[in-house]
Amino acid sequence: MSGRNFRSDNEAGVAPEILAALARANEGTAHSYGADAITKRLQERFCEVFETRVDVLTLVTGTAANSLAVAQISPPYGAVYCHTDAHINTDECGAPEFYSGGAKLVGLGGAHARIDIDELARTLNHAGYLGDHECKPAALSLSQATERGTVYSRDELAALTRVARAHGLRVHMDGARFANALVHLGCTPAELTWKAGIDVLSFGATKNGAMMAEALLVFDPALAHELGRRRKRAGQLLSKMRFVSAQLEAYLEGGLWLRFARHANALAQALAEGVEGIPGAELVHPVQANEVFLRLAPALASGLRDAGFEFYRSPRTEDCYRFVTAFDTPMSAVESLLQALRAPT
Amino acid sequence: MSGRNFRSDNEAGVAPEILAALARANEGTAHSYGADAITKRLQERFCEVFETRVDVLTLVTGTAANSLAVAQISPPYGAVYCHTDAHINTDECGAPEFYSGGAKLVGLGGAHARIDIDELARTLNHAGYLGDHECKPAALSLSQATERGTVYSRDELAALTRVARAHGLRVHMDGARFANALVHLGCTPAELTWKAGIDVLSFGATKNGAMMAEALLVFDPALAHELGRRRKRAGQLLSKMRFVSAQLEAYLEGGLWLRFARHANALAQALAEGVEGIPGAELVHPVQANEVFLRLAPALASGLRDAGFEFYRSPRTEDCYRFVTAFDTPMSAVESLLQALRAPT
Amino acid sequence: MSGRNFRSDNEAGVAPEILAALARANEGTAHSYGADAITKRLQERFCEVFETRVDVLTLVTGTAANSLAVAQISPPYGAVYCHTDAHINTDECGAPEFYSGGAKLVGLGGAHARIDIDELARTLNHAGYLGDHECKPAALSLSQATERGTVYSRDELAALTRVARAHGLRVHMDGARFANALVHLGCTPAELTWKAGIDVLSFGATKNGAMMAEALLVFDPALAHELGRRRKRAGQLLSKMRFVSAQLEAYLEGGLWLRFARHANALAQALAEGVEGIPGAELVHPVQANEVFLRLAPALASGLRDAGFEFYRSPRTEDCYRFVTAFDTPMSAVESLLQALRAPT
Amino acid sequence: MSGRNFRSDNEAGVAPEILAALARANEGTAHSYGADAITKRLQERFCEVFETRVDVLTLVTGTAANSLAVAQISPPYGAVYCHTDAHINTDECGAPEFYSGGAKLVGLGGAHARIDIDELARTLNHAGYLGDHECKPAALSLSQATERGTVYSRDELAALTRVARAHGLRVHMDGARFANALVHLGCTPAELTWKAGIDVLSFGATKNGAMMAEALLVFDPALAHELGRRRKRAGQLLSKMRFVSAQLEAYLEGGLWLRFARHANALAQALAEGVEGIPGAELVHPVQANEVFLRLAPALASGLRDAGFEFYRSPRTEDCYRFVTAFDTPMSAVESLLQALRAPT
Repeated sequence: MSGRNFRSDNEAGVAPEILAALARANEGTAHSYGADAITKRLQERFCEVFETRVDVLTLVTGTAANSLAVAQISPPYGAVYCHTDAHINTDECGAPEFYSGGAKLVGLGGAHARIDIDELARTLNHAGYLGDHECKPAALSLSQATERGTVYSRDELAALTRVARAHGLRVHMDGARFANALVHLGCTPAELTWKAGIDVLSFGATKNGAMMAEALLVFDPALAHELGRRRKRAGQLLSKMRFVSAQLEAYLEGGLWLRFARHANALAQALAEGVEGIPGAELVHPVQANEVFLRLAPALASGLRDAGFEFYRSPRTEDCYRFVTAFDTPMSAVESLLQALRAPT
Repeated sequence: MSGRNFRSDNEAGVAPEILAALARANEGTAHSYGADAITKRLQERFCEVFETRVDVLTLVTGTAANSLAVAQISPPYGAVYCHTDAHINTDECGAPEFYSGGAKLVGLGGAHARIDIDELARTLNHAGYLGDHECKPAALSLSQATERGTVYSRDELAALTRVARAHGLRVHMDGARFANALVHLGCTPAELTWKAGIDVLSFGATKNGAMMAEALLVFDPALAHELGRRRKRAGQLLSKMRFVSAQLEAYLEGGLWLRFARHANALAQALAEGVEGIPGAELVHPVQANEVFLRLAPALASGLRDAGFEFYRSPRTEDCYRFVTAFDTPMSAVESLLQALRAPT
Repeated sequence: MSGRNFRSDNEAGVAPEILAALARANEGTAHSYGADAITKRLQERFCEVFETRVDVLTLVTGTAANSLAVAQISPPYGAVYCHTDAHINTDECGAPEFYSGGAKLVGLGGAHARIDIDELARTLNHAGYLGDHECKPAALSLSQATERGTVYSRDELAALTRVARAHGLRVHMDGARFANALVHLGCTPAELTWKAGIDVLSFGATKNGAMMAEALLVFDPALAHELGRRRKRAGQLLSKMRFVSAQLEAYLEGGLWLRFARHANALAQALAEGVEGIPGAELVHPVQANEVFLRLAPALASGLRDAGFEFYRSPRTEDCYRFVTAFDTPMSAVESLLQALRAPT
Repeated sequence: MSGRNFRSDNEAGVAPEILAALARANEGTAHSYGADAITKRLQERFCEVFETRVDVLTLVTGTAANSLAVAQISPPYGAVYCHTDAHINTDECGAPEFYSGGAKLVGLGGAHARIDIDELARTLNHAGYLGDHECKPAALSLSQATERGTVYSRDELAALTRVARAHGLRVHMDGARFANALVHLGCTPAELTWKAGIDVLSFGATKNGAMMAEALLVFDPALAHELGRRRKRAGQLLSKMRFVSAQLEAYLEGGLWLRFARHANALAQALAEGVEGIPGAELVHPVQANEVFLRLAPALASGLRDAGFEFYRSPRTEDCYRFVTAFDTPMSAVESLLQALRAPT
């Protein structure tokens, strides 16, 4: 990651460990469409990492993972509850609706992009009153970490999934930044997922050092039914799948993924702490993963831009900006950024 | 490609030139979702190669390319004519139907997987009689090379697209093995596509040495309308797109793609020629690309298997087998295969 | 039915018994969306007529009945086998594909629009070879009577459904002209459906004297799951449903439906018999319901038209014409038609 | 309408004038699928009533009309803005999403179920920032009268459609109770629709005295493109269409529809006025059409129920109840209801 680019962790490159795995995977021929040895090994590897039997579907985009998940846990006439600001609701151009054949995403509120549990409970209590006139409450989708760089605690997660299950809902976790949430909480993958009531996980790796590698993990075998055909007809079954699986294998190997996430989180933390006390700069959300949202005085924002820093403005708030750290962002980049904020030209 | 694997060109690995391009593309950060420099260059490169302005959509599977194409050229209530044995009709688990929202694929006959032009004309002449009760004739989809390793001549192509256009149809070409057809015919990419009446091309690279890289090329700008949103909601917009584009750039560089295709075709040709006169082995289709279909006596087939050769049996014909050569199949592999056929143990 | 109109039984009007039922149903207010007393009674009535517990979904078009059936018995990635000339394949503008979210209709051949059982068996034996690349064999759809006015015998039906069930398929019957088939065979509704392996029946009434009334009958309760929501989101849940149910109740009352079908069949039979020996006129299909397909010499066809007779030309065959008799076609109409054929002007 | 049923105007029966029209339409045979003389006359009649050329699609449910409208004005990847409480958003089980192939309904707030114009403007100003990641702003859908019995003034309508058009949106009006809104405002059908910027209107008749008759009116011919095929594949093309058209013809004849709406509105007004000053009863929304929403003390509500009155409780508010008057509700029913409220037992 170059020294001034805080636009997104998906503007970073690929970790050398993962590039090397691609080269290694290139030896000889291999069965196509996921019938290769690496993909088979990966399935076992995920079972170990998550301490349970898990069905693994290798993919190349988080949108595909999320949308396949929604299609598996909701019928076309179902309602899927998520935060209003969830990626599946705002950033995927209707992919979950497309994959599911028209399921309805119902947006819920909640501070810092975390779903308000009371609103969820209230909504579910009212649902069903209209019978066939209403979409069937089918699923809850949670983002961990959220779109605003916050993280649900294990207790919060358990409470949310308890409400969902009491109403017969299935639960999906969008883990595009799952590793970042995991190291923030310091718990095990199992504790953060199936032990907390999660049925399906979109496991992201691309934002954390992979080239193009995501996985859909299904903890309830019933929900894996015909997932392969859904993947195929979505155009997501890669012929040379070994090159996706190899990325994920390297990603998990020796805790690489956790090391990368710890690094990115630490830098975001450093940025958040450094911002304190800087006039005209203010944190908008708690910093719990690798994203920092700042409200900046106009002069500060334009000063950063003039100094060559790259970052996003939030879509709906004029003076709010997002800074993302990646697995390979150097600490010096954060220091330069703080320096530029402290001493605007 | 290992010495005994003739199962499919997608069981081959990745060309070193393309692996090297991935490593090169990994320098520094880059804009995501296709806004990077490599993807921009690639757009220009395709315009040069095809000698016209062309909209390029980088993708990672042929199924996605074909299905996006169908969705752009047919409304949900449209009919898309293709060969009964076309990949989009038999091997994509309904992906074109899914992407288009329910368009109807209408299978046509024709020897060696090439559409019979008389049947096309007759079918189109009858279409429309039932008005709103019938799907609207919308598009023709041609595979070049076909599913049986044959190639339409330029005249055949022109005749087919002329019939299609006379009935207001748009024309798609499934070019999963476009390079193989091109070098067989010895014409230019432009001659084989827009000059022959093709509106949209699925341009394949994965089967010919890439890792996961395909492109949808749109020759009529009107058909590119909102293609980006369709790609996104299909979960096909990769964040680190530069790593797809880099593969395609290397693939086109210095005619690498043509060189690879010539090699694979030559080997298939050698296999076809070598088979002549071998008792119990017989060519099923003309060999014009990199696939050889053989009818084999049972003893021959099992002898090959015992000797460690890998190949597919055709789904619907008991004694018909497919042998595919790849960009890196060694000539010695073909020689061993012929040797085994000539002197069965 | 006017004396010269043989175009279609859906050009006939409404039986007086059914009009009277509509007037009777108009007394007082009634719960909407099917929660009224008539709709409840109708459910019971169908159970009696079919001698089993059956879930009944009242509808107003056969296309909706067929398409809801397909959506219930096939997943979006499923394959539904039917005759190439089946109504769902040729005349519904892709409605089954739309309702099911993209299921693939696979057309099978067979004389007189009856599915060839060998072709069905062969097709199913080959299905599945391609795994996830192929649509999942899901259902068989049979038309009884067929699009060409023929009827499957009970043995033929049983044999077909046996093959289907052996491959795990569900079976749908398109009974737009169910009554006509029933009286032709002289068996009970139960014998022609669930006792013969049918899971879901599109029960038509509109073509046989109703105004707009069809029903989807589901014999396996598992297949009725959430059918109500599917109907609603298809826009097929009428608010004043009692006026659909009242038609069906009157239709079943005192065997009205069978009386009507017997009449229409008898006239078709009379027409078929009368045609024998007329030069230039020849039966194309056996006449087993209320449709007569004739191959006519050009002079005969134009003579009929000049004499004011109305009838359809078959879409794909130049000299083949369809004559349909309805519940109220007068015998004199058939006599005039025969007269005109015998003594062309 | 019986004397104590205020549940819904769709629990009322059919006006005698409309029943009579059905009987008249039953003379002789007629071309099917809308090619009959009555349907043709109806097209002309609507042009006169709306003082412009209008494409008319006869249908039998409002859900079908709304959903076909959405499918015509929004691509599958489009966003359709409507009030959070709009019927299309809450009561149609995802039918608009289904028909459109996955368009996203975006709910907006606003008092009394009328869209807040500032929220609309703000939302549209922010839309598009995310490019292909976001659904394309495609259409605005307004309900007139609204789900809460309120009516947009002509100025409000014009202002809303002006904002929509400035952002390139098409505008749909859900007129399930169009007649009620029209007579409330005292303007012409043209003034309330195309002259106010409406592109497509769901014209309801069923709730106002018809049996099952709705129409989709398209004011911009471009938006009528292939509407017929969309109707067919939705299973909404009735074979004996003359019996739908006859209802609408009678409905328009001699201003019957306006007379009915005036009656229903007047009764709602009488109820609203009568409620003033009754302790424990309070209007929740302005009464501008034929629906009255009352907040009732528990004793009042249960008293009414005990006295045999029928009415709905609002789905999301415990103590809020809906009373609907119909074209044939007798004034005595309102008087009895007020009497029961004034002197609870």
